Order: sequence, then structure tokens, then C-alpha cells
Amino acid sequence: MFKITLLIHCPDTSGIISKVTTFFHNHKGNIIYIDQYVDTENKIFFMRLESEFRSKIEIASFKKAFSEEIAMPYQMSWQMYTAGNPIKMAVFVSKYDHCLYDILSRYKSGELNVEIPFIVSNHPDLKPIADSFGIGFHHIPVTKENKEEAEEQQLDLLQKEKIDVVILARYMQIVSGKLIQRFPNRIINIHHSFLPAFAGARPYHSAYKRGVKIIGATCHYVTEELDAGPIIEQDISRISHSHSIRDLILKGRDLEKIVLARGIKLHVERKTLVYNNKTIIFT
Amino acid sequence: MFKITLLIHCPDTSGIISKVTTFFHNHKGNIIYIDQYVDTENKIFFMRLESEFRSKIEIASFKKAFSEEIAMPYQMSWQMYTAGNPIKMAVFVSKYDHCLYDILSRYKSGELNVEIPFIVSNHPDLKPIADSFGIGFHHIPVTKENKEEAEEQQLDLLQKEKIDVVILARYMQIVSGKLIQRFPNRIINIHHSFLPAFAGARPYHSAYKRGVKIIGATCHYVTEELDAGPIIEQDISRISHSHSIRDLILKGRDLEKIVLARGIKLHVERKTLVYNNKTIIFT
Amino acid sequence: MFKITLLIHCPDTSGIISKVTTFFHNHKGNIIYIDQYVDTENKIFFMRLESEFRSKIEIASFKKAFSEEIAMPYQMSWQMYTAGNPIKMAVFVSKYDHCLYDILSRYKSGELNVEIPFIVSNHPDLKPIADSFGIGFHHIPVTKENKEEAEEQQLDLLQKEKIDVVILARYMQIVSGKLIQRFPNRIINIHHSFLPAFAGARPYHSAYKRGVKIIGATCHYVTEELDAGPIIEQDISRISHSHSIRDLILKGRDLEKIVLARGIKLHVERKTLVYNNKTIIFT
Amino acid sequence: MFKITLLIHCPDTSGIISKVTTFFHNHKGNIIYIDQYVDTENKIFFMRLESEFRSKIEIASFKKAFSEEIAMPYQMSWQMYTAGNPIKMAVFVSKYDHCLYDILSRYKSGELNVEIPFIVSNHPDLKPIADSFGIGFHHIPVTKENKEEAEEQQLDLLQKEKIDVVILARYMQIVSGKLIQRFPNRIINIHHSFLPAFAGARPYHSAYKRGVKIIGATCHYVTEELDAGPIIEQDISRISHSHSIRDLILKGRDLEKIVLARGIKLHVERKTLVYNNKTIIFT
Repeated sequence: MFKITLLIHCPDTSGIISKVTTFFHNHKGNIIYIDQYVDTENKIFFMRLESEFRSKIEIASFKKAFSEEIAMPYQMSWQMYTAGNPIKMAVFVSKYDHCLYDILSRYKSGELNVEIPFIVSNHPDLKPIADSFGIGFHHIPVTKENKEEAEEQQLDLLQKEKIDVVILARYMQIVSGKLIQRFPNRIINIHHSFLPAFAGARPYHSAYKRGVKIIGATCHYVTEELDAGPIIEQDISRISHSHSIRDLILKGRDLEKIVLARGIKLHVERKTLVYNNKTIIFT
Repeated sequence: MFKITLLIHCPDTSGIISKVTTFFHNHKGNIIYIDQYVDTENKIFFMRLESEFRSKIEIASFKKAFSEEIAMPYQMSWQMYTAGNPIKMAVFVSKYDHCLYDILSRYKSGELNVEIPFIVSNHPDLKPIADSFGIGFHHIPVTKENKEEAEEQQLDLLQKEKIDVVILARYMQIVSGKLIQRFPNRIINIHHSFLPAFAGARPYHSAYKRGVKIIGATCHYVTEELDAGPIIEQDISRISHSHSIRDLILKGRDLEKIVLARGIKLHVERKTLVYNNKTIIFT
Repeated sequence: MFKITLLIHCPDTSGIISKVTTFFHNHKGNIIYIDQYVDTENKIFFMRLESEFRSKIEIASFKKAFSEEIAMPYQMSWQMYTAGNPIKMAVFVSKYDHCLYDILSRYKSGELNVEIPFIVSNHPDLKPIADSFGIGFHHIPVTKENKEEAEEQQLDLLQKEKIDVVILARYMQIVSGKLIQRFPNRIINIHHSFLPAFAGARPYHSAYKRGVKIIGATCHYVTEELDAGPIIEQDISRISHSHSIRDLILKGRDLEKIVLARGIKLHVERKTLVYNNKTIIFT
Repeated sequence: MFKITLLIHCPDTSGIISKVTTFFHNHKGNIIYIDQYVDTENKIFFMRLESEFRSKIEIASFKKAFSEEIAMPYQMSWQMYTAGNPIKMAVFVSKYDHCLYDILSRYKSGELNVEIPFIVSNHPDLKPIADSFGIGFHHIPVTKENKEEAEEQQLDLLQKEKIDVVILARYMQIVSGKLIQRFPNRIINIHHSFLPAFAGARPYHSAYKRGVKIIGATCHYVTEELDAGPIIEQDISRISHSHSIRDLILKGRDLEKIVLARGIKLHVERKTLVYNNKTIIFT
């Protein structure tokens, strides 16, 4: 069984679904998933579709036909994926290990359909974990002075390994605009607050100070404005006055790892589209 | 703008989506919502579709064409709704008023696209509430002796007013098989537990006794087996050892009214399909 | 059975619990609830205690003894309540009725141990609801020009009826500093966002624009800084890209009424203490 | 600073709190936490108390005094812990690694105040994980024939290492009555359903079949009746018709590890008491 996943968005007009589904049908594709959404404010049509084919199709000519017959007439932005090669994912960490353990244990159990060629860190501390999972570890220290150079090193690694997506798993550095532009909507961060509340540094301290009764975590695509990128997933946990900042940090860790894992899954299963700094999540 | 909502299920095969969407497109319908699900175990295809038409269509001939060209060849079970007439809904209550207040205040605010011709109760207590909302109230006492007769009265009322759906809003009586057969998947009950845990009577007492840390409520279609019908919606609330049975009852009320309201909305917006004693919920 | 509820806070020191509980024991009080919290940062001790007495005690002399023997030596701020007279609560509304219906149906069912002498509104729309529950309704229009005068009228009403607590149940006006100073930590507001996110006007519109995946509601005491008072209770609801602003508003209503009801209950059951713009909630 | 944690339960009577807190005060203990609960049905008083002492006290004589002056007159069952030695915890696993990774990464980060001398498994699969964390691993195969003998081996290990608590971290074997009697309320299991719903084998399959909209996990003390022991903690996750059994299993894993971790923490921080097959959880 050969499988294709298609993501599109285009100006909203009548007949798109019929045209697209008929195209797949005519090419002997059986549609096993379809979901669509219309942004009525901006008049944009979004769709995600999965199709199975009994026999392998010639993907290049299929894409060409789709482009000419469907995508161009409807002015579509589109992405088409075949199930073959898993996404290549790099993980950036600092010293906290809870998200890294969580990602790697999911990876090992086959829960994430990705390949993780290496881990990058500005500290050497988590190398033993990378080792125990048999994954490469690059220690690239980042200081005020060498920031640009360090980033070049990171970019080289990402390009050499043809990385698709970068996960900032509590990587405590601000990523530069250059990296972000090279990986638009392909750098995923976990922020330890319920955004837009408590953006920036030390959100648990701010949450404690404000006396909120619920804390949260937010998984989002990284854009140049700090903690303001398209939100992929959020979740929350109840707290009370009796919780210290340390309690919030501990409770928050569980949120961070779960929310980041969900965000990663949504991305690697090609269930996210970004438009206008917001995500459309096809579930 | 004229709008049609279509719900179908049929044996799964290739090309259904393409056929249906092209049919709508050819009749000048613009599909504004489509969602589908395949029960791979039973090989059944389910779909919900909303389509807008710029000009009013001849619905009888449209239905006929759909039946002949699409539904019959694919052996579909299907329901087609136009937005015109709201669903007619009867509410059955006993003495508890929290669900009734909740339903009626939503009704009054226009949140529910229904018409409520009357309320039925085996007790007279809630008549003043019906009065204050200007809704008819039928007091039909139910005893062991008159149960059959009382049910005849209920059926008469339901038929005379052409009721589409019956809501058991904490109606503390078991509904007979006769009524259920006349309204298959059209009687909605709220059960005050997280089914299948604590089916039957006095679930809060059982929850207290078992020492659970979470209580729930379940909105489901009524079938002849008690509390075993297709589940539409569930939700839960945290409790602790310090909560008395009375606390559970009070906390539970909030669950009951919210969960019932969500279930009613899903039904009246034609977002539910039932198959094999389970619901497919199109959201 | 005669019951006293005591709330205290004072500089933290050793022996307070022992002293207080022994005082109650010596006065033949049986302690049925005790909870305490120490703010280690500010070195403040907080406690809530409920005590039952088999026979009615002379409350004035009991208070005097407590004041002299316990409160003064420990520099306590303290409140002592007897179960006798229910709290007098005024409800301020504008045009939205969902919170009002919710409060009044709880009131009627005896769930809230309060007395509601009247409802105040700047619009006449909700008078019929007040009528149907047999509660007084004062229509006090508020304009830019008459704001001060209107507030005088409100204050007169509150004083004449000896109101303890004011509930802003989606009262769409900013309350003046004068009223707030007269009712410190006794005006309760429901804000339709997850504070501190989306403070101010039109939070559902802001939440929609930001693309959050969760919306919230916050019940808080009103202070002079808008939406920045001590938080009593919060809760959240999941949303997705497919929810319109209107969907958020509808979903939010359910949050608002539940969260406000919980906040009211905590206050009227004397389970809240405020310190440093945060609440201690004894549950 | 020297710290004592006290847990008691006894027949409810007047003056207990006063007596206990005065005892601590007289021994120069500063009470930093007190919480109590009265089971009014069974007339049992429960209390948890933490006290700090500026200088080290003679614990043996302190205990003796407490026993004679307080515990005996009030017929108390009581446990007194000093913060010194961490709890010794054994982890039993089969082949699933998600709970094990979660426990060990928390252990390593210092989040759990325990010592884990060894892991026991009926399969050799997870030995590499134990190795990478530097923890002993005992492979004790269990078959129908050798069950009794295997259990003897387990008991020997538990006794030799003076294990306090046993965690069944998805250990897919039923533990015998003998082991349970030796470790009453000291064997903690994670069951992958919202008990009492779906007790026994394959709960995700049953949940799928029943069409529930929410799945859960339950952490409980093991008693001889399967999945019927005192519940320590539960949590839930929303699902829909579109989730396959495999989806439930994956979503469930996240629940299992979080709920088990919370249960373990409550136990090792001495925050649980068991009475009448229910837990009192002091938070």
C-alpha cells in the first residue's frame, strides 16, 4: 500500500474539494482521510488529505499533474508527502533533561516516526544520555562573543544532515533570525507558560508572583518575535497558594514534556499548517 | 444562502468522497464543511457534509437525484437536513431543576437552535419554571400501576407536537422499550457518573464508597439496556477524600448540566451518527 | 450545635496552632477543620479553623477573650464568623443573563448560603429574570455624565441593605475607586480570559487573534488596577482553529458561570484570605 | 533543622489537635504543616503534621513520650518519620519501558526522595535501561509452574534490601496474597483505566468497544481483590471515535506515567493514609 499526504491552502472558492478528490480518484487513490477548514475572515481554504494507492505510483509525474491540473488553477500553496523517508529531526538542549528523556524514550519505542541524527547543546551535561540512546551529541558552547560563529556551526550540522525540523527541548538560548529564516515553521519550542501570559524569562516566578491558580505550557513554532510564534499545542495544570516556585517548576516539567511531545507528533505527522501566525491543526 | 447538511454511512469503498462532492458541485453547492471517518474494523464509511447554495434549490428533486445517483449505488444510509425548521425538542424532568434551568436559559438566549413545545414531568414541582419561560408543562404522574397508561399519554403528546428528540434532564424514571423504539437514538439522557463506572442508581453514593478521585457525567442515547446506550459526551471533575456525598452531588450538578448541554447541541446540530452502539461525533 | 469559623494571619512564629487550638478546647469547642499555610517569603502565618460547640456560647465575651489572650500577643489580623446570619450579596449585571441565571438557580436551590436582597443593572433588560425569582431589581443607568451620581445611588443601596459582598456578574462597567475602597476584597468579578493573558476589553477577540488552543475565565477580587486583583479561581476550555469568535463566546459562557459560582462559594463559605494581592484558598 | 512528619488516625473526639500541637510545642517543635480530616460516618479522626526542631531531638524518647502521653490515651494508630533516610523503593516491570524511563529520569534528577536499589522483571528486555542508570536488575522469570518459587526469590530480595515500597510499573503479573500481606498498602500499581471502569485485562480494548469519550489511569495500593485497592490518584484524557486502540494505548501511556509518578510522590512524601479501602490524601 502506497500512501500520500497532501496539505494545501488557497483562496476559497467553490468546487475545490470535488476537484481534488476526483483527481485522486482518477489516479486510483482511495481517500482515507480528509479534513478542511475555511478561514472566512481572510477567505482562505485549507485542506489535509490522505490517500492510499494499491500500487506504487510514479510520484514525480503525479505531482506534475497535480500541479498543473489542480494547484495552479486554484493558486494553491501545497505540500505532498510520501510515507517513505521519516522526517529528520535535531534536538537542541541545555542542561534540563526531562524533555530530552521524554523525546528519546518515545523515539526508541517507535512512537515518533522520525530519525534523530544528533543532539546539540551549549553544555556538555547531557552527553551521557545521548550516548545511552546511541545518538550523536555536539557540544557547541554559546557565549556573547562567539554567538554568530556557534550558530554557523549549528547551521552546518543541520545542512549536512539535511535536518527537516529542529526541536528546542528547553534550549535556554534565543535562536537568531538567520536560523529562523532558514527553518520557517520548522523550529519548535516549548515555553513553560500559558502564552501569551508570562512570555519571556522565568515564567514560573511570574506565575507565582501573580498568584494564578493554573499554570501552563505552550508548544509553538519559533518566529523572530520572542514567544510570539504560531501556537501548536497548550495544556495546563492546577496549582494552589501552597505551591512554592520549586513546586511549580516540578509540576511544569510534566506539562512541558507532554505538550512538547504532542506538538512534535502533530508536526511530524504533517497535521499542522501555518497561516497568519496561527496554526490549523488537523486531528 | 440556502444550506444543506448531509450525514451518511455505507460500506467503505473507493471514490465515495469524490462522487458525493462532485454531485454537490454540479448542483451548484459550495461545500463548507466535510468530515469523514472509516471504521476499518467493520469497513463502514461515515461522512458529514455541509453545503451552501446561492439560490434556493428544489429540495425534493435534489433528494431524489441524490438517492438515485449516489445513495443507492453505494448502499448508503443517509439523512439530509435543511436549516429551515428547527428541531422540536421535549424535555422530561422530575424534581431537580439545575439541568432544566440550564437548558431553558440557553434556549432563551438563542444558543440552541430548537423549539421546545412542552416539558413533561411526573411531579408538579417545576411547573413555575416552565411558566416563567412561557413553555407548556404537562404533569403526568407515573406509578407502578399507571406506568403504561402514563407512557401512552407521553407518546400522544410527542406525536401530536411532532417531537424530534426527547431530553431526559434528570428524569428519574426508566423509559419503556416502546418509547425507545419509537425514538431510536432520539432520546438523550444524562447519567451522573462516568459510564461504564457506576451505572444504575445512586452513582454518587457508589463513587464515594469506592473512593475515586474523579467523578463524571455521561450524556448518551437511551437504549433498552439501562445506561448502556451510545455515549455522546462525557466530562469529569476532581474530588478528594474530604468531599461528602452531598459535595459530590453539588459538584456533579455542574457536570451534569454542562455535559447534557453539549450532548444536546451536538445532536441538534446534526453532528452525531450512531453505529454499533457507538457514536461518531463530527466536530 | 453552634459553629464558629475563624480566619487569621499574623507574623509567623512558633506555637500559634497550639495556642489557638488549646484556646478553643478550653472553651469547649471541638475543632472540626483546621488548615494553615506559611508564606515563607514574607514570614506570614495563615490559618482557617472551624469549631463546633455543643451549647451556644456568649460570642461577645468569647471574642473579647480571643482578642486579648491570642490575637493581640500574636499581632493577628482575624475574622470570626458564626453560622447564624447568611452573607448579604448584591449582584450587578448588564445585559448578559447566563451568569445571573446560574447564580439565581443555585440560590433558589439552597446551594449558596446567602441572601440576595437585590440586583443592580445599568440596563433594564434582565428585570424579568429578577422578577421571576422574586428579587428586587434596581435599574441605575450609567453614562459618562452621571457616573459619579449613579455610583452614589449604588452605594446608598449597598449601605441601606448592609450588603457584605458585591458580585459583578458580567457587569460591563468599570467600578470606581470609591466603591472598591468601601468594599475591599468584597467585590468579586468574573473576567472572561485566563488572566493575566488578555486583560481588558474583548478578550475572546484577542484569544482568537493570537490563536491560543485554550481559553479561560478568572474570578478575582476587584482592585483599582483593572483585572489585576487577587485571583480566586480559574478554569479553562480547549478550543481549536475551527472555532469562530462566536464559538469562543459561547464556550466561554459555560466557563464564566462555573468559575464565578466557584469563586462566590469560596468567598461566602469564608474560605478565602487575601495577602499581598494573592489569595490563600482553604479547601 | 530537624524535621518530623506524623500521621495518625484514631476515634474522633474533642481536643486531639490541641493535645498533639501542644505536645509538639512543649518539645520545642514548630509546626509547619497541619491537616486533618474527620470521617463523620465512621467517626475516625485523621491528621498529618510536620514539625521542625531547631536542634536535633532524641527521637526514641520523643516517640516514647508521644506514645504514652498522646497516642495511648486516644487509641491512635500512628506513624512518625524523620527526614533522614530516604524510602527504599523497588520497581517491578515487564516489557513496557515508558513508566520505567519516567520513574528513573525523575529519580536521577532528584525529584523523588527515594533510593532504588534494584529493578525486578520477569523479562530481560529492560536490563539495558537499568544499566544506563546504574541500577541493579534482577531477571526473575515467572511461569505457571515456578510462580511460587519466583515469588520467594522476590521476597528474599525485598527483605535483604529492606525495601519499603514496591512499584508495579506495568508489571504484567498478578502479585500473590503472600507478597501483599507482607507489604500492606506498600505495593503501588498503575492500572490503565479509570477504575472502577474496565478493571482487569485489556482495558483499552474495552474502552474502545464501549465507545467512551474519555480514558483514564488509576494509581492504587494493591490488595488481594484485583484492581480494587485504595485509589491514590487518577487522571483522564479525552478521546474520540477516530482513535484506534493503538491510539488509546499511546495516549494512555502518557497518563500512566504521570499518574503513577504522582502516586509514588504522594506515598514517599508520607501524604497518604489508608482506611476502609480508601485513601486520605494530605496535600
